[in-house]
Amino acid sequence: MLKRTVNKLEPPQILILVFAVAILLGSFLLVLPIASNEAISYMDALFTATSAMTVTGLVVVDAGTAFTLFGQIVIIALIQLGGLGIMTFAVLIYMALGKKIGIRQRILMKQALNQSAIGGVVALAKKLLFFSLSVEIVAIIFLSIRWVPELGWSDGLYTSVFHAVSAFNNAGFSIWSDSLSGYVFDPVINILITLLFIIGGIGFTVVFDLWSKKEFKHLSLHTKVMLFGTLLINLFSMLIIFVLEYNNPDTLGVMSSSQKLAAAYFQAVTPRTAGFNTIDIASMEESSLFYIITLMFIGGGSASTAGGIKLTTALAILLSTMAVFKSKENIVLFQRNLRPYTIMRALALTVGSMAVVILTIFILNLTEDASFLTIMFESVSAFGTVGLSMGLTGELTTVGKVVLVLTMLVGKLGPLTFAFAFTSHTPDLIKYPKEDVMTG
Amino acid sequence: MLKRTVNKLEPPQILILVFAVAILLGSFLLVLPIASNEAISYMDALFTATSAMTVTGLVVVDAGTAFTLFGQIVIIALIQLGGLGIMTFAVLIYMALGKKIGIRQRILMKQALNQSAIGGVVALAKKLLFFSLSVEIVAIIFLSIRWVPELGWSDGLYTSVFHAVSAFNNAGFSIWSDSLSGYVFDPVINILITLLFIIGGIGFTVVFDLWSKKEFKHLSLHTKVMLFGTLLINLFSMLIIFVLEYNNPDTLGVMSSSQKLAAAYFQAVTPRTAGFNTIDIASMEESSLFYIITLMFIGGGSASTAGGIKLTTALAILLSTMAVFKSKENIVLFQRNLRPYTIMRALALTVGSMAVVILTIFILNLTEDASFLTIMFESVSAFGTVGLSMGLTGELTTVGKVVLVLTMLVGKLGPLTFAFAFTSHTPDLIKYPKEDVMTG
Ligand SMILES: [K+]
Ligand SMILES: [K+]
Repeated sequence: MLKRTVNKLEPPQILILVFAVAILLGSFLLVLPIASNEAISYMDALFTATSAMTVTGLVVVDAGTAFTLFGQIVIIALIQLGGLGIMTFAVLIYMALGKKIGIRQRILMKQALNQSAIGGVVALAKKLLFFSLSVEIVAIIFLSIRWVPELGWSDGLYTSVFHAVSAFNNAGFSIWSDSLSGYVFDPVINILITLLFIIGGIGFTVVFDLWSKKEFKHLSLHTKVMLFGTLLINLFSMLIIFVLEYNNPDTLGVMSSSQKLAAAYFQAVTPRTAGFNTIDIASMEESSLFYIITLMFIGGGSASTAGGIKLTTALAILLSTMAVFKSKENIVLFQRNLRPYTIMRALALTVGSMAVVILTIFILNLTEDASFLTIMFESVSAFGTVGLSMGLTGELTTVGKVVLVLTMLVGKLGPLTFAFAFTSHTPDLIKYPKEDVMTG
Repeated sequence: MLKRTVNKLEPPQILILVFAVAILLGSFLLVLPIASNEAISYMDALFTATSAMTVTGLVVVDAGTAFTLFGQIVIIALIQLGGLGIMTFAVLIYMALGKKIGIRQRILMKQALNQSAIGGVVALAKKLLFFSLSVEIVAIIFLSIRWVPELGWSDGLYTSVFHAVSAFNNAGFSIWSDSLSGYVFDPVINILITLLFIIGGIGFTVVFDLWSKKEFKHLSLHTKVMLFGTLLINLFSMLIIFVLEYNNPDTLGVMSSSQKLAAAYFQAVTPRTAGFNTIDIASMEESSLFYIITLMFIGGGSASTAGGIKLTTALAILLSTMAVFKSKENIVLFQRNLRPYTIMRALALTVGSMAVVILTIFILNLTEDASFLTIMFESVSAFGTVGLSMGLTGELTTVGKVVLVLTMLVGKLGPLTFAFAFTSHTPDLIKYPKEDVMTG
């Protein structure tokens, strides 16, 4: 009976249902006395469960001190479920939304997808679970080599498991209240953690494509774009942060040149969408914070554990703008032309996302007593499920918490998912004559 | 020789040339000793000339007290030239940018446009000069009825001329340093000034279309959209400002209900793009200021004296987003389908505009000592050539002034104009296979 109802649902509706149920269950577990060292309100439990399930990492109570081991295990389970869930559904929803997937992607997906949506979900989820666990186990081994000698066997292993799962799923949760600031100059932690969240955030289709292809030219357009795009935006962002924070005494100012580079690298890659930090966010220059806001809005790769509008979406928007500027009709990328529908979808996603962010900022401006930049930063961080914070999240009003819970949820599942789930889909019956309006 | 060179230029290049020459000439006149009561720097003269020619209204020195009658006449002449110039070129650039203009608009434009760009410019400019002067003269008569009894013949007439030209051209310059705050409850001034800048800001094609058609159904799609769109956004904005500022003791809080309505109405219609104010901007709530920022970015009508991305551009973006959300292929508006190219152009314009605004905010964050919201407000006000200010413009550093001069210029002429003027236009020679990237 239940199964029949669920089978009738479209993938976007199932996705919302899965997230809602998991978050509610998680919040009930987190509000239990055995989950926390001090009594926490249900609102704080709900916020924490949402932040974990949406792999955001914004916290109203400190994950490391407020929660018991049981509570922390609930959090890490929600993170793993959220990361898996979002990767699994990404492709299904992509197809449900009327998107014809390219032949190369289709081959990748073929074996994983069955007739019914539920069947597809389960098969794909199994495959992705194997992928996630493989990467996480390798990461746990490497992290343990660093952390077991420092923290002993049980703490060292636990710390490695927690941060491996949190990093691969781009959750940004840490057991330390200052995130990874204690390891700002540690090369092993810097490299391992960033590598983990970059692999998790680039999208599994990219990883699978790389795994199965021998030559660069055989890679899909999407893979090529993601590889080059990720490299370029990370290098550029590193340069920007390095220059802007060079003399800031509260961030890079006191460091040596190589330390500056390490900290700039970490802070350049974490806003899309990991959310860990090794320097104090609130102490950064306003121009850096504004730059980070744009990075958080852009986010990582499609079909990944990252959030935001995604790198390819931003690129499609940018390239189509440049095409119009140059009076070109076609958008060229690695000797391929982008389809018009790709552009329309990218446009809708970006505008829908901006609408959600603007509404969040607008409401928080009414309810919270904080500077505009702080509110903007926290809103985009929640929408992009990044988890970087200038400090507002810890001091939110109840209304503010409710708003950010909704923003994280819409941000993670995507405005298109909600739009599809809650609108009827009737074909255009009438064709009207075409007419223009003047623009600009 | 000169004429032959100019004839070879494309309309976007001529437009930039006209504005650059007029601004430079204006700045030389304004820096003359006879133009100002106290010595002003060349930078301030250049800023004022740019602000006048781009009909922005942001001021680094007070127009009413710093400048002599000669200086003020230079300012008002630049405003008239800038307003006329931008309306004249709007249509030419529209066509130059590869836009096929609709039959209805074409009929409107036909008699005005000759073979050569220069010929077209001159003919259209004459027609628009007649239009501008007619409206302004009627306005001067009505304003004089209010201001001559109060200020005497010479002052009353001069004040009426200055504000009629400034309002029709959406310039927002006032001879009073608190703009029209002295007339916040004056029904005549409220109605006349807002009517003037709404007529100037809705676009002359709308006015001409209304003038020549007898029935609503014969109006062009553009006209219908602008009429309904302007009405709806103004009513909605009035409601928002009314509610948000209702209890603010520094703005509407101390007023009676009808006074609140009058002030909310004025503050709702002025951000797109008039720039006059009757209440103190800096005293408004942060949520109101953020809302006003979005209004300033949207702006008024195409082929008008208003700035911003334009109401129809914002609407095209919004409607195409909603079409994707509803899985529709066509965008329906008053029983017409919008052309895909209209959407692409709207997208490019919006993204290009955002890029300019983001860059301005980013640089001002480095050079100016002001809150983020203030910097964002002033940047969007300059880009949208609005002229509303939270007070930063009067305290700008020299670099800040240079940045806003460029922002006003790019904002007024449009990113597409600059892109067209400075890029080569070669057709797409190679057709590549189509391939998608995943978005979102
Ligand atoms: K995160
Ligand atoms: K203005």
